[in-house]
Amino acid sequence: MTKKRQPQSDGDMSASPNDSSEESAVVFPPTYIIVQFSKRIRATALVWLVNKVCSKRLDGGAELLVRRQPHRDGEGVTLHVSASKIKFLEVAEELELKKRDRCGLIREFTVSQLDDFLEDGMHVDDLLTTAERQYIVRHELENIRTLKEDDQVPGYPAFRLYEGQSIVQMCLHWKLVKRMYPLHDMEALDKLGKKWYWALFQKQPFEDIRLYFGEAVALYFTFLGFYTTALLVPMFLGFLQLFLPTESIAFFCVFNVLWMTVFLEVWKRKCSELAFTWGTIGMTSLDEPRANYRGVMGIDEVTGRYQPQFPRWKTNARLYCVSLPIVFVCMVGAFFVMLASFWAEELLLNMKKQQSLEAGEIVVLLPSIIYSAVVFIMNSCYRKVATWLTEWENHRTQSQFDRHRVTKLVLFEFVNNFMSLFYIAFYVQDMDMLKNQLAVMLLIFQAINNFQEAILPLLIKYYNKRVTKALKFDAILGNKKTDESGRKKKSLSVNHEPSRAILDYIPELDSDDPRIELAICEGEMEDYEGTYDDYLEMFIQFGYVFLFSSVYPMAAFWAVANNIMEIRADAFKLCRLYRRPVAKRVKDTGAWQRAFEIVGAMSIMTNCSLLCMSPQLRRLAPTMTSVEWVLVFVVLEHMLLGIRHFLHLVIPDRPEWVRVALARINHLSKRALKNERMLKSRRHILRRYKTVHGSHNYNS
Amino acid sequence: MTKKRQPQSDGDMSASPNDSSEESAVVFPPTYIIVQFSKRIRATALVWLVNKVCSKRLDGGAELLVRRQPHRDGEGVTLHVSASKIKFLEVAEELELKKRDRCGLIREFTVSQLDDFLEDGMHVDDLLTTAERQYIVRHELENIRTLKEDDQVPGYPAFRLYEGQSIVQMCLHWKLVKRMYPLHDMEALDKLGKKWYWALFQKQPFEDIRLYFGEAVALYFTFLGFYTTALLVPMFLGFLQLFLPTESIAFFCVFNVLWMTVFLEVWKRKCSELAFTWGTIGMTSLDEPRANYRGVMGIDEVTGRYQPQFPRWKTNARLYCVSLPIVFVCMVGAFFVMLASFWAEELLLNMKKQQSLEAGEIVVLLPSIIYSAVVFIMNSCYRKVATWLTEWENHRTQSQFDRHRVTKLVLFEFVNNFMSLFYIAFYVQDMDMLKNQLAVMLLIFQAINNFQEAILPLLIKYYNKRVTKALKFDAILGNKKTDESGRKKKSLSVNHEPSRAILDYIPELDSDDPRIELAICEGEMEDYEGTYDDYLEMFIQFGYVFLFSSVYPMAAFWAVANNIMEIRADAFKLCRLYRRPVAKRVKDTGAWQRAFEIVGAMSIMTNCSLLCMSPQLRRLAPTMTSVEWVLVFVVLEHMLLGIRHFLHLVIPDRPEWVRVALARINHLSKRALKNERMLKSRRHILRRYKTVHGSHNYNS
Repeated sequence: MTKKRQPQSDGDMSASPNDSSEESAVVFPPTYIIVQFSKRIRATALVWLVNKVCSKRLDGGAELLVRRQPHRDGEGVTLHVSASKIKFLEVAEELELKKRDRCGLIREFTVSQLDDFLEDGMHVDDLLTTAERQYIVRHELENIRTLKEDDQVPGYPAFRLYEGQSIVQMCLHWKLVKRMYPLHDMEALDKLGKKWYWALFQKQPFEDIRLYFGEAVALYFTFLGFYTTALLVPMFLGFLQLFLPTESIAFFCVFNVLWMTVFLEVWKRKCSELAFTWGTIGMTSLDEPRANYRGVMGIDEVTGRYQPQFPRWKTNARLYCVSLPIVFVCMVGAFFVMLASFWAEELLLNMKKQQSLEAGEIVVLLPSIIYSAVVFIMNSCYRKVATWLTEWENHRTQSQFDRHRVTKLVLFEFVNNFMSLFYIAFYVQDMDMLKNQLAVMLLIFQAINNFQEAILPLLIKYYNKRVTKALKFDAILGNKKTDESGRKKKSLSVNHEPSRAILDYIPELDSDDPRIELAICEGEMEDYEGTYDDYLEMFIQFGYVFLFSSVYPMAAFWAVANNIMEIRADAFKLCRLYRRPVAKRVKDTGAWQRAFEIVGAMSIMTNCSLLCMSPQLRRLAPTMTSVEWVLVFVVLEHMLLGIRHFLHLVIPDRPEWVRVALARINHLSKRALKNERMLKSRRHILRRYKTVHGSHNYNS
Repeated sequence: MTKKRQPQSDGDMSASPNDSSEESAVVFPPTYIIVQFSKRIRATALVWLVNKVCSKRLDGGAELLVRRQPHRDGEGVTLHVSASKIKFLEVAEELELKKRDRCGLIREFTVSQLDDFLEDGMHVDDLLTTAERQYIVRHELENIRTLKEDDQVPGYPAFRLYEGQSIVQMCLHWKLVKRMYPLHDMEALDKLGKKWYWALFQKQPFEDIRLYFGEAVALYFTFLGFYTTALLVPMFLGFLQLFLPTESIAFFCVFNVLWMTVFLEVWKRKCSELAFTWGTIGMTSLDEPRANYRGVMGIDEVTGRYQPQFPRWKTNARLYCVSLPIVFVCMVGAFFVMLASFWAEELLLNMKKQQSLEAGEIVVLLPSIIYSAVVFIMNSCYRKVATWLTEWENHRTQSQFDRHRVTKLVLFEFVNNFMSLFYIAFYVQDMDMLKNQLAVMLLIFQAINNFQEAILPLLIKYYNKRVTKALKFDAILGNKKTDESGRKKKSLSVNHEPSRAILDYIPELDSDDPRIELAICEGEMEDYEGTYDDYLEMFIQFGYVFLFSSVYPMAAFWAVANNIMEIRADAFKLCRLYRRPVAKRVKDTGAWQRAFEIVGAMSIMTNCSLLCMSPQLRRLAPTMTSVEWVLVFVVLEHMLLGIRHFLHLVIPDRPEWVRVALARINHLSKRALKNERMLKSRRHILRRYKTVHGSHNYNS
């Protein structure tokens, strides 16, 4: 295969992509996405893919600009992908990106109204943020869908394609494309870092975060800040409680759960404000489908576009009839594993007592250690299952997909993280043990997390840097040297090396381009898998703080202490330790809002039960029968749940100004539709009258 | 005053209203609204009002057509109000009435697209239903708002007006206008009746009901039908239960509460389907304000129209800081009245036992009878208070007003109707008494209601007809006779008789016009105060059936039996016994939906408690401690509430097709807005370039 200069491809290799004289002459625009191909990919497939990326939209292509990174031995082809200025604007219009116009109104961007969106002194290039550009390039890449004639990947008869599939997604799935990631912008990153993780006691620069990392990340950090602020009150109450009699805990506890309800409601409002200013508030499940959405190609009922169609009831049927039972079984499984660990521990303790087991303290800890390991393994398996199931359910939009995936994961995590505490609280009923366990879990859990998130990757990075720096430069230099002389040698090298013809086919970046090192560096960084783990951490913390706040009021203090560190650590991690995450548009915290709310409702129940079980409180009413005592707390719990429901109803989900602004946009667009129709029907009537008068003259 | 032929009015009386030659020549179009003035109204005020109704919109008028009914001694002026064909269409466009177009799409009606809305063979006059025409005329009447120069009602210096108030509403408030009601259309009514209350075993003609009575009434009857169908399952289970051991009641009870949850969720979906086909689904709290909405005149933020403005936070402050506490106090008051009645009854029973009270059985019933009377009085007082409070809160739209008024009333009714049952169930804990009480209340309550609704008005009507028929015709004939000869006599009659000048000023209907008798007849009918009482009846029934279904499963049977009668009785009542109700546009059952849902949630709690208290069930688990037994039911209750919440989340509020259709409309209007802006900015750019090139030639 490597001998022929003309590769066997259906791709047209007569002219290089992006090879028009103007394009080559100018500097290649900033790289937004790096695409690394597998080094084993066949030449035909590679050419076919590159052609898809570069060719005209009419031919099913993405019209993007590509440059190849100078080749390094033993590595696959790496492409730098960018787009022309006009392409960015066109796609921005197509994706209905919302931008603030001169009048301060947030509306959909259109190219023809470009001027409306440019504030005084603003250049066209500053209109789209880097996050948006990245999002646009990625969207275009992922939106290359198979045409009718593409029934397989060229060179891979086994990889069958169906019309309307996302080619890039399928290639990632089959590992023909190794990975795809956006490039960091070091200058912007330095600026952001100074305002963010180095400015310890200042407000986080939310807007800058959004511009650089996209809405999903910005929303997470806003939530983190907001939640930490809200925690200050329970923290203060926790301190106050130290100086008051134990019985007062009932009041604090009641206050805490109500405070938490209000916090969640206010957060929802804040979310809608943010979503409005970010232009994401109108996102619905009927939007542009995500890349992996599969279905028969057809006319979309809403937009009239040609898109994959998949009936909603099928998704629901899969969700409720298959996924739900599987998740439930997994949860029960995890619960029994937890029970088994407790039983084993008890057994060992008994053995130790009775037979004076000699093996020492460590043996008693064994079940806990094994349990932790098992949980770790279960977790990673379950994560795969949940992702696969959600993929199979075939949700239309990314938000829906995320919501259902997160829901599945959270349910499982809930069992793993909280069930042991429930067991201790309500089955063993040992409050001191519960308190200790809580303290340990809160501290250990947070320490591990911080270590895992910030310190470990730093160490790894530092180690990697020292080891690979030399190697890397050698490779680059080596590559350069062999560039001229070693052509023949290379064409005789291992089968997996791409042929010279292909390398020549794709225009190369200058070998001294700083982007090359950046791309290599980032390629070696760890992948940031989205905000899931970060939210999960907060969720578990939230549970620890509120579910058992009547037993361990100091939890809030530890949480605040952790979060203040966490904000900066997460920021640092995101900027320096991970590959740049793909910008994601979101309008709310999705499944997390509901998860927090449900834990909120549960915390009312658990705290009432704990108060009911408290011997200190029981002593206050010695004349009550135990049934009466239980009923008192059942009534209290119902009242709190009632108040919670009332707050939920009374606090509107959207602030008044957002409602008015949305209603205004709605009103304007309805009026525009009316006008449009009026014009149309006027034209129609005119035409009809003309016909009537011209031919028959009925009316005269 | 009556001596002068030229009345002292600011109104221009030189030309009669609607006096153009064409208008007078043709027959006056069908009357849609009757306006009866007080017989004491001063001439200046009357002329001013009539001028407002008839004059051009630019002068602050409503541009409606009026005819005076031939005068009857001792009665005020009665106007028949109608509108020209083009006026109806214009207002229909302004009110954004939704109509189905030829393509089956439901969209806002516009005059210029009239043709689009006319199906083949449909005449323009058939486009708007009588309910809609009525609604339009009434809206126009109520929408006559005071101008800057109207600082008082002419002739009444005490009646001060502020800019932007609804003049008709204020005159109704000051009793200058006695009443305002739409006229029945006897032909349409006969047709409707045949399909509705005479067709006992057929589906109700919902569409015809809507066309004649408007959306609110149609929705009530749809609900009634749907709810009765849903009750068949509990009824069947109630019968089944008779043949099974008592313990089985737990299962039936659990099934019932879940069934009821599903019913309420499905009803919400059905509601949104109906609202979509009726074109009311888009109603929000930012719509056109209702007539009594008070506020400073200003530019509306959403529509840009000149409308009264009142800050939302003030409404909320009034609602939560004033109304809510007052309502709460009233509820507590009603509760104590209920307790007092129970105590009095107990006291009398004890007295009878101990001192062998001789006064007989009736004395023991005395507290109940007094209590009923007190409740009746309290209810009517409270209704006034609630209406006044809601008016004072100043809600923007009619739907909001209704929702908040209904909420207030329902809370109070809940205490009056259910608290005694709660008292018996959970304080006295006498299940047999509860069962008897339930049976009695269900039967008596329904019997009284049916009597009150259908039979009593029928009797009154029959009696009235016989007495007044003679009188009425005498009056008309007498009026006719004195018409020519008695002019002088009349001008010398009591001060309150309107002067001849005024009577002449307003064109008169032919004295043999059939509308005159109709108007007089209807004027004597009782006023239908909206669907509130009908819903309330269903609500109370719903409570009786579900709140205590574990004690008295046969309740469902009685409810079904009643409802089958109720549907026809309500229909008959509405068509024949009441004045024609004003058509009201609604999109859902408003506060009732929530009220039913809350009773639904409460029924889970009450039934679990009742089951817990049941000695038959307790016998099944003799080894359990009482605390354990209570906890079993607490857990059961929580599980049921959890399932309810889950069902609530899982069943979407709108069916998929409605969502898609709405998204489609949204998409189309957004696209239209984009196009409109594109055109505008193109024009803008062209103009700018022209200026640039024309004057300075910067760019060349």
